[in-house]
Amino acid sequence: MEDYAIGIDIGGTNTKFGVVDRNGHILEQDRTLTNAHESVQEYIEDLYEKIRPMIDRAGGIDKFAGIGVGAPNGNYYTGNIEYAANLKWQGIIPFASMMATRFGMRVKLTNDANAAAMGEMMYGAARGMKHFITITLGTGVGSGIVIDGKIVLGHDGFAGELGHTIIRPGGRVHKGTGIHGSLEAYASATGMRETALEMLTQHPETPSLMRTYKSEDITSQVVYDAAVKGDKIAQEIFEFTGQLLGEALANFIMFSSPEAIVLFGGVTKAGDMLLNPTRQAMEANLVQVFKNKVKLMFSELKEADAAILGASALIWES
Amino acid sequence: MEDYAIGIDIGGTNTKFGVVDRNGHILEQDRTLTNAHESVQEYIEDLYEKIRPMIDRAGGIDKFAGIGVGAPNGNYYTGNIEYAANLKWQGIIPFASMMATRFGMRVKLTNDANAAAMGEMMYGAARGMKHFITITLGTGVGSGIVIDGKIVLGHDGFAGELGHTIIRPGGRVHKGTGIHGSLEAYASATGMRETALEMLTQHPETPSLMRTYKSEDITSQVVYDAAVKGDKIAQEIFEFTGQLLGEALANFIMFSSPEAIVLFGGVTKAGDMLLNPTRQAMEANLVQVFKNKVKLMFSELKEADAAILGASALIWES
Repeated sequence: MEDYAIGIDIGGTNTKFGVVDRNGHILEQDRTLTNAHESVQEYIEDLYEKIRPMIDRAGGIDKFAGIGVGAPNGNYYTGNIEYAANLKWQGIIPFASMMATRFGMRVKLTNDANAAAMGEMMYGAARGMKHFITITLGTGVGSGIVIDGKIVLGHDGFAGELGHTIIRPGGRVHKGTGIHGSLEAYASATGMRETALEMLTQHPETPSLMRTYKSEDITSQVVYDAAVKGDKIAQEIFEFTGQLLGEALANFIMFSSPEAIVLFGGVTKAGDMLLNPTRQAMEANLVQVFKNKVKLMFSELKEADAAILGASALIWES
Repeated sequence: MEDYAIGIDIGGTNTKFGVVDRNGHILEQDRTLTNAHESVQEYIEDLYEKIRPMIDRAGGIDKFAGIGVGAPNGNYYTGNIEYAANLKWQGIIPFASMMATRFGMRVKLTNDANAAAMGEMMYGAARGMKHFITITLGTGVGSGIVIDGKIVLGHDGFAGELGHTIIRPGGRVHKGTGIHGSLEAYASATGMRETALEMLTQHPETPSLMRTYKSEDITSQVVYDAAVKGDKIAQEIFEFTGQLLGEALANFIMFSSPEAIVLFGGVTKAGDMLLNPTRQAMEANLVQVFKNKVKLMFSELKEADAAILGASALIWES
């Protein structure tokens, strides 16, 4: 009986992995640095050395249904990691195939945001839902879209790049893509930092707790801490971010009419400070048939676990 | 053998219907006025009187697999027409069920834009494609989204309202919805007319062929005729409309990564005058992984036929 799967989440800094059972319990987990190796072969060797003992402790390879991997720019159709900006290995890496060879197990791969959506569907806030969208608000803005119980991959496996949709035409330029006014340029932790720097410059006369920081030290966390203490500019940053995010969510809802939108990632630690203006802007921009219907919620999964769970869920999916 | 289906397209003015075979050939077609009856019962009776002889001429009811209906605000899940702004019958009309009772046949119903997308998939420009989006640029802007060969309906059957997505936050107000800056407020025939009136007012010194018309007579057709004759303002209206439409299409592509976008409806008669600026803005706003991949094309179906074909296709779908 194949009781377990390995879930691997490849992030820009850390790679997290663990042994997961069919109920979404993580038996054991560990991590390694993603970009500390000279080649992808050495990275895979490092993973093998750390994961193989976990497999043995869980009863050996026969107990495992396979390995699920969530990776930036991971393509479900090909099993490749293609041109991932944050990874050391450039070009097209046939990662699933290389892993399968080394581990002697079935390996399925998808992009990290899709893996998170799978995790939400199987073990998190979206349990039992067939139509929902997961938005990850972290360093960037990722998304996983589920329609009829399936992750939307599109004709080439690259669907669900909602962070790159445009919400302010001609607006702030995104340093990575060169595109103006995309959601990621505003609603990511990086975007909130930029909003903070802009607002502090635009209102030099307004006092703010954030002015005690050097500009390079202002993060979304600093904004949050200041907002909690009643800092007007910091609170306005959350209002502004929520306004833009809510408008974007309204657009997504009118595309796929989901039952819920599940928010995820570091920026969501702000809780209602972000959720309230987001919900207000979202509802204000929906046509009647969608109003007061769509649940806007936070992930129920611990962030560290969610990624591993989501990746492992790929294996149970089919 | 069930060789035929009835396709019915309910428009705000006309209802078109016909007998269609499995290859998408229309054997016979006719039309009636949509809003000329006191009640929906009388309307259905009118349809029955006109369609029943067609059925008999094609060999009788046993030759028919069913009736497919495309209707504004038609809901595939329920078979209801719900709160359709352009129809006389208000509230929730159990149209499919009423039709099935009167005709003694299986009836499937969906919204008109989804029916058009079905038609494109089975008989038109999207033959063989599993991932595409149809955008109807008419009096309004409608859309049908196909993912994995299936129309996207969403959790409640109302998905695919892309005309209501916001592309100019705080922009032009949409008279029907009250929402600012939606695609429909700009890229519909109605929107182009508004753009024309705005531009003529903003540039009173610039000569234009359109100034020979009374303002109430300026239509998207007038804009087109003027643009063809080299009218600068008219040409700028197409540039502007294409710019906004292209930006919106880029957003849609980053959602579902379709193989193609199929444009449809009266405004598309402008051909390259609309297509070129649209394509340019679309490509400019896509992140790398989507660039130069997505076909932007016009429908291959005659507009009058497409609606009937699309509605009939509902019956062959399952």
